[in-house]
Amino acid sequence: MNTKRVTGKKGKFIALEGIDGAGKSTHSSWIADHLTRQGISVTATREPGGTPIAERLRTILLDRSEVMTPLAELLIMFAARAEHIDKIIRPALLAGRWVLCDRFTDASYAYQGGGRQLDSADISRLEQMTQNGLRPDLVLLLDAPVEVGLARRHGQDRSGDRFESLDFDFKQRVRAAYLERSRIQDWIQVLDATASIESIQEQIRGHLDTLVLSQRP
Amino acid sequence: MNTKRVTGKKGKFIALEGIDGAGKSTHSSWIADHLTRQGISVTATREPGGTPIAERLRTILLDRSEVMTPLAELLIMFAARAEHIDKIIRPALLAGRWVLCDRFTDASYAYQGGGRQLDSADISRLEQMTQNGLRPDLVLLLDAPVEVGLARRHGQDRSGDRFESLDFDFKQRVRAAYLERSRIQDWIQVLDATASIESIQEQIRGHLDTLVLSQRP
Repeated sequence: MNTKRVTGKKGKFIALEGIDGAGKSTHSSWIADHLTRQGISVTATREPGGTPIAERLRTILLDRSEVMTPLAELLIMFAARAEHIDKIIRPALLAGRWVLCDRFTDASYAYQGGGRQLDSADISRLEQMTQNGLRPDLVLLLDAPVEVGLARRHGQDRSGDRFESLDFDFKQRVRAAYLERSRIQDWIQVLDATASIESIQEQIRGHLDTLVLSQRP
Repeated sequence: MNTKRVTGKKGKFIALEGIDGAGKSTHSSWIADHLTRQGISVTATREPGGTPIAERLRTILLDRSEVMTPLAELLIMFAARAEHIDKIIRPALLAGRWVLCDRFTDASYAYQGGGRQLDSADISRLEQMTQNGLRPDLVLLLDAPVEVGLARRHGQDRSGDRFESLDFDFKQRVRAAYLERSRIQDWIQVLDATASIESIQEQIRGHLDTLVLSQRP
């Protein structure tokens, strides 16, 4: 079997989640700096992507020129994840590094489950097959009304990839699925992404401090 | 859900299986001609591939420059299959066309199950998720000792993709897994690929005649 349970995992695994425009990039940089200043080695990565093969899969996933079958999209997401876990995430955690990942499996439940309306039981089966018990220690969900994310993105005048161009109802379902996940998984912390950056950073700092303390003997 | 059960399927679905060098291409052309001469419309296709997205996935799968995580390989195979079923195979069968496919799911059991030694229960889960009851009406398994396939390929002086370059033990496991599948799935017909082309065609003709007759009212 290629997906061994992560025994002897020493580092912590943090994922950032949220719809486009919620501020993930801003907070990701701040978190990496904050941890590094405490002497923690951080591997910052993203999904889909993180390895050469997974980045090639990302290119196919984001390409707007082809309409993709929803189930193919879900399977490609998990193929990229299998690569990413095997080559980047698991080795980093075993070496004692902390992993900070821009989106992980909750994004599959939100986008392919909520957005594309695929069966969450199928997502759960793929999660077990691919992760074999590995999950983030902390997920920071930057939550904002869809209007806010769209306005921020338009402010940046981005042309938009296949996911960014999806319609309002789709993004409403994504947001609702994220919030639903946060109610059943207690390691998901919801942050109000419309609050001030300072206020959000203060909350994130509290969650990171808890995680750092939990690791000390 | 995107994978609806194929109700109202009118055409027949035939898959050709076997290790490289077993003669799939030769027999595939002959089968297409034989059926066409009887007034049957044939869609000849291949896996992985058959749609623009699936062909892009095929390029990643066959690329020898990167070592791919076995589970990622399996998931990409099924992603390509989901595309292929949705856009090519199911529409053709519903329209009354016959589908002739160079490799299908038995190849996943043989290569990723037997060859890569992934758990066949995972393959079965992916099969259910992706095919939702769709399976070939007839699988023609061209079986030959690995030495014979290798010798034929070397005779063609092909440089070899990522699968063709795999070692002898791997191909032995692939062959064994194919034969094992044929013992438990009665729609898989094993043909001795070392026999003369005429003799193999005579056997294939018999299987095709049975299939044509089974469709008549």
